[in-house]
Amino acid sequence: MRVSQLPFAPIKTIPADADSKNHQLLVQAGFVRQLMAGVYTYTPLGLRTLNKIRNIIRTEMNKIGGQEILMPMLHPKGNWQRTGGWDNIDVLFKLKSRTGKEYALGQSHEEIITPLAKEIIQSYRDLPLSLYQIHWKFRDELRSKSGILRGREFEMKDMYSWHESQDDFEQFYSQVKQAYIKAYSKVGLMAKVTEASGGSFSNKISYEFMVLTDAGEDDIFYCPSCDFCVNQEIAQQKAGETCPRCSNEKLKAARASEVGNIFDLGQKYSQDFELTYMDKEGNHQYPIMGCYGWGTTRTMGVIVEKYNDKKGIIWPKTVAPFDIYLINIGLDPKQAQTIYQQLQAMGLEVIWDDREDQTPGSKFAQADLTGIPIRAVISERTGNKIELKARNEEKTSLIEIDKIPQVFNE
Amino acid sequence: MRVSQLPFAPIKTIPADADSKNHQLLVQAGFVRQLMAGVYTYTPLGLRTLNKIRNIIRTEMNKIGGQEILMPMLHPKGNWQRTGGWDNIDVLFKLKSRTGKEYALGQSHEEIITPLAKEIIQSYRDLPLSLYQIHWKFRDELRSKSGILRGREFEMKDMYSWHESQDDFEQFYSQVKQAYIKAYSKVGLMAKVTEASGGSFSNKISYEFMVLTDAGEDDIFYCPSCDFCVNQEIAQQKAGETCPRCSNEKLKAARASEVGNIFDLGQKYSQDFELTYMDKEGNHQYPIMGCYGWGTTRTMGVIVEKYNDKKGIIWPKTVAPFDIYLINIGLDPKQAQTIYQQLQAMGLEVIWDDREDQTPGSKFAQADLTGIPIRAVISERTGNKIELKARNEEKTSLIEIDKIPQVFNE
Repeated sequence: MRVSQLPFAPIKTIPADADSKNHQLLVQAGFVRQLMAGVYTYTPLGLRTLNKIRNIIRTEMNKIGGQEILMPMLHPKGNWQRTGGWDNIDVLFKLKSRTGKEYALGQSHEEIITPLAKEIIQSYRDLPLSLYQIHWKFRDELRSKSGILRGREFEMKDMYSWHESQDDFEQFYSQVKQAYIKAYSKVGLMAKVTEASGGSFSNKISYEFMVLTDAGEDDIFYCPSCDFCVNQEIAQQKAGETCPRCSNEKLKAARASEVGNIFDLGQKYSQDFELTYMDKEGNHQYPIMGCYGWGTTRTMGVIVEKYNDKKGIIWPKTVAPFDIYLINIGLDPKQAQTIYQQLQAMGLEVIWDDREDQTPGSKFAQADLTGIPIRAVISERTGNKIELKARNEEKTSLIEIDKIPQVFNE
Repeated sequence: MRVSQLPFAPIKTIPADADSKNHQLLVQAGFVRQLMAGVYTYTPLGLRTLNKIRNIIRTEMNKIGGQEILMPMLHPKGNWQRTGGWDNIDVLFKLKSRTGKEYALGQSHEEIITPLAKEIIQSYRDLPLSLYQIHWKFRDELRSKSGILRGREFEMKDMYSWHESQDDFEQFYSQVKQAYIKAYSKVGLMAKVTEASGGSFSNKISYEFMVLTDAGEDDIFYCPSCDFCVNQEIAQQKAGETCPRCSNEKLKAARASEVGNIFDLGQKYSQDFELTYMDKEGNHQYPIMGCYGWGTTRTMGVIVEKYNDKKGIIWPKTVAPFDIYLINIGLDPKQAQTIYQQLQAMGLEVIWDDREDQTPGSKFAQADLTGIPIRAVISERTGNKIELKARNEEKTSLIEIDKIPQVFNE
């Protein structure tokens, strides 16, 4: 891609209403545009990064047997009445058709997927089952803030599973936990598995995946020595107390952002929708249901909160919109174009700052702001080599063009 | 993929409310499920086909310089008031937040993309520009019918472009037309470019892409000899009259389904949102805007309307969810699995009917209903060969396994 053709140029001034780093930097670097509080457009750059996040999650969900589907966002009132959500969930957007029919906009999809599962699940042979989608949701938030961390319209991966027994559920639950931790690590995040409340319909414990960041909305206690971590809302401990799990260290308090959550829904939705299966003895049973959320757009925001400096964003390689930001200083544009094409032929995703009316300094600044992992400079001085610099390092190195793929595979 | 793990099994009885072939067959073969009239879930099979349609369109839009973005579905009332749409568009869904803010659900995105373009376009150097998205839309239809042909929630590719002059616009317009015809042909459809009315805000002519099918909602006149085609709504001719373009043939009347449309929006939205650019002489001008729609989910429905027989769907190869439907008659399941993996290793997308409780006849019926282009049978009799049969042919042929890739590249 050529920078000259990139819409949504970088903005030098900080947006007036930016209350967080991710809002500020994603707008300045041209990844998103705010339509209104909590509602954003994703630009070509932003969509590239979002697609990488989606695909990393999709791969891990497929590996554990999740099957991808796509459910509607417009829901009939009846489904939400049946579970109590119509009257009890205050963030549920409601609307009416011209003929007076009432709908909800999906803020979660238990109300839609349970009737679907009813069609699939007849016998214990149909269990376990897990279905997921990567799709948009709506929440009527009183206050939408922190850029794309808390949206009125946002995207999630939401998976749902059904099981014969609590044991089978627990087993899958722990597979999902591992898949989540792996996928978070792939997108560059260290997520802490945190005990939290089970939500409005359950007195069980749920698990939240928390990334430590001051931009977060949650307060947690965690142990620096073991994996103990608990949301302060349900904590029986205090900061400074000895870790109840390993007794090695004292618990620390931290601010964190929830990037995912998994719930044991028990038989609530199975009962609400009369979803039963025939067990081995020929008796009708309600399956145990689990739900596994992951905010894809929020994850993009949290990555920016974690990885930035005063010059801009520092994307992890796996989710950067491009691998290389190519800058030509003084070489004939045709030569530069040849190198641009050579790099692309190596399978690298290259963004070439081909603008002729910009100084090298301004191109360096844009490379840094955009956060592309590698900056590549070509000039008379570099000959048949390219000067590479990692976004998060100071040192540069001169590499022969045909050795570049090796550098990227390291 | 194994059929034993496929959720949403085929349904033998025709759904009671199916008023069209696409509704009937997509539900029976397990590609979609209806949540309510005009609102559907896409199953793993359905999503695979939808993704293929999306990618074919995406490729052609990228080739002509379109850049992909993703815009919100929840729109502020103000944007729709500004263009008159809030009061004049009867299919616009409207809703209110808890705090009384009013929103529309996007039924098209001129109201959102014009303010975005304002940020990108300052000078004639920023033109032409074309941006598109592949995303969901909502329409408060009084009557939603014909399966996924006319949805209350449906997906579209919508592209928008801006130009300095009418000439430049016409040039791009004709590029898009060619790209559309190419992409329709890739998904298996012969689309007729049809003159139609310019819509509620324009007295210009627009072009609709029409596929002849009795399930359609439009009536057109077309010439069997040249490419003359006009929507009856604006036609100055009658069926049986001599073609006004080529004079070779008499016009025929036909029923058709609109799978895409392109509009010359003139300066309407540029003026509504005060979008101007500085021309070469330093004067502020309103750019000419074009809009190019393509219903992705509707296209899936139209393909089914065109390609089916009494046994089920007959997907064109390019949009089929799988290349091969593999059926094992009596071979050891381990041997079958080896062949399944061999075919996958050749880069083919294989669905293997591994169910042991089904008769060969029932597997044949499912292969036909699902509409996979090639049915492959292995048995004691086929030895190290596979019996292949195209979905739309009667003859079978025995092919050595390692020659299969050649067959598929023919």
